[in-house]
Amino acid sequence: MKRLRLSITGFGTVGQGLAELLSTKHALLQQEYNLDIILVSVANARSGFIYRENGLDIPAILELAAARRSLTAHPGVTHWENPLEGLRTTGGDILVEATPTNLHDAEPGISHIRIAISKGMHVVTANKGPGALAADELFALARQHGVQLRMESTVMAGTPVISTIREGMAGASVHALRGILNGTTNYILTAMAAGQSYGEALADAQARGYAETDPTADVEGFDAVAKTLILAALIFGRSLKPGDVIRQGVTTITREQVQQAIEQDNRIKLVASLRLLAGDARQEAALEARVAPVALPLSDPLARVDGVMNALTVSADTLSEVTIIGPGAGRAATGQGLLADIIACARGQV
Amino acid sequence: MKRLRLSITGFGTVGQGLAELLSTKHALLQQEYNLDIILVSVANARSGFIYRENGLDIPAILELAAARRSLTAHPGVTHWENPLEGLRTTGGDILVEATPTNLHDAEPGISHIRIAISKGMHVVTANKGPGALAADELFALARQHGVQLRMESTVMAGTPVISTIREGMAGASVHALRGILNGTTNYILTAMAAGQSYGEALADAQARGYAETDPTADVEGFDAVAKTLILAALIFGRSLKPGDVIRQGVTTITREQVQQAIEQDNRIKLVASLRLLAGDARQEAALEARVAPVALPLSDPLARVDGVMNALTVSADTLSEVTIIGPGAGRAATGQGLLADIIACARGQV
Repeated sequence: MKRLRLSITGFGTVGQGLAELLSTKHALLQQEYNLDIILVSVANARSGFIYRENGLDIPAILELAAARRSLTAHPGVTHWENPLEGLRTTGGDILVEATPTNLHDAEPGISHIRIAISKGMHVVTANKGPGALAADELFALARQHGVQLRMESTVMAGTPVISTIREGMAGASVHALRGILNGTTNYILTAMAAGQSYGEALADAQARGYAETDPTADVEGFDAVAKTLILAALIFGRSLKPGDVIRQGVTTITREQVQQAIEQDNRIKLVASLRLLAGDARQEAALEARVAPVALPLSDPLARVDGVMNALTVSADTLSEVTIIGPGAGRAATGQGLLADIIACARGQV
Repeated sequence: MKRLRLSITGFGTVGQGLAELLSTKHALLQQEYNLDIILVSVANARSGFIYRENGLDIPAILELAAARRSLTAHPGVTHWENPLEGLRTTGGDILVEATPTNLHDAEPGISHIRIAISKGMHVVTANKGPGALAADELFALARQHGVQLRMESTVMAGTPVISTIREGMAGASVHALRGILNGTTNYILTAMAAGQSYGEALADAQARGYAETDPTADVEGFDAVAKTLILAALIFGRSLKPGDVIRQGVTTITREQVQQAIEQDNRIKLVASLRLLAGDARQEAALEARVAPVALPLSDPLARVDGVMNALTVSADTLSEVTIIGPGAGRAATGQGLLADIIACARGQV
């Protein structure tokens, strides 16, 4: 049995979702993967960083978090106000970085990741900031320290796309990706296809918790841009900046445009795309990156992906088109992506 | 650089397709995967088994095969009439088993695989016979010898489904699979949806090389049954027999039934399915296995998968439904699946 000591920074929906899986799947992980995973530290904004050498009681920690109480109430923990200091002092085998995405400077996640890698910890993250803004630096650091940095959950949550392309399709040369990578806008466009106006659809998405009070990051395409940057780095090995991605959101799309598209047997979707312009995988080919509404014919596998579902179509030399459709958000789905990454780290996949 | 010595038994479309990829991707495999793959032996029915310590010249071997000449014409090779003897005497790091599928006794593939594993070779195979009829025995043998046995290409060719479920979704508990796993019947049903009769559609599929002169294995569902047995073993860890799979082919489907389904916004597809009857992943739950035509509503992601494309929908505790759509056959696509498996063996994934 291989013992893995885990640290989780950021204990909101995502961090708690993973902790829940670690608790409910503890026996399965032992039996099927020969892994004994213990959670040695957790950090959140309310409580700072708590650590317990022999492992935290996950149900107890989840209860404290649900009651919005300080995690320091867990018996027998050592406490640091500053997570960076706590992490630097304690360490572990794997850091799970689950603080909220910040697309301005990727903090505090990027600092957590830098420290963990420097201490020789593998890192798995659901936080889009570090991968979108600093993939180059972080992967170089990981190589230097001989550890893995994995981020399956940053794109389509736990629906396996990054691992499917990098490992499942190993050896193939990918020349294009096209995806529906933002569930909020897809929900809105689907509701508009059913007859709602943009305003009605947005209000509906907000009422269901799919859109935030300030929906800018989703409806203006910034979230999809972040995922596009991550895919550019992980699939094409290209370090793009946010400004390199041609971006158009869905706020100016009208019900009439959506309905007219339907009459022509098309569906308007917010499509994130990456395309090697020379049409091959030569290092020098330019990579075009774009997030914009597109009218897709019904024969396109992305056209029928409705509601909050996400999808990605991969074009490669050996496989024409492969499309993966699945959930793009959610507590269990995001936790699943982190869990698969943790297992991959334990297996020693690179 | 890690040097891998490869042996290929069976040098028809599949074996040649892989050899082609190994040749065209030799530099890429060195650069991106740090692998120097050399082909040390090849066997086919015409030539027996040829071996060359320092590696065969792949373009030369492909030329001989294309000209239907004996592979023994390759300079400097040692030759055995009997591939089993050749393999036993020479060995290598990985056996690629690509002889034709035989669903009666899995020969000669299963004998090649047994010998290779016993010699400590990893095995990757596109041959459905051994996995469908003897997965239990072969995986036990592989564990005993500490080697990997991988068979991505047996289901949906190189479209990554087995690795996506086992590795990309590691930690998830799968409770059901539903798939379009046979391209020939999907081509026929798609043509019938466009107005052809069964006979016309079959003749069309035969003319295009999608169906064989004796189409029984495809149209009666035996090919889909073999893939269902492989998925039962690899995803659910259950060893089913062909007779355990409820089977109905497409030969009795009429154009009228297909058209009537369309009028009701459904599509008739040959669906292979596996389902844990208790609805969870307990070891004791019964596994229902079925291959039969089903009328799917258009909201089903499988309904719009047309022509020779294949697809698989995975239902799991943490991911609701994930669907993977991609090519299910073809020289490059099948070679791709073998190549990804080879890279996974080299990486030491289990």
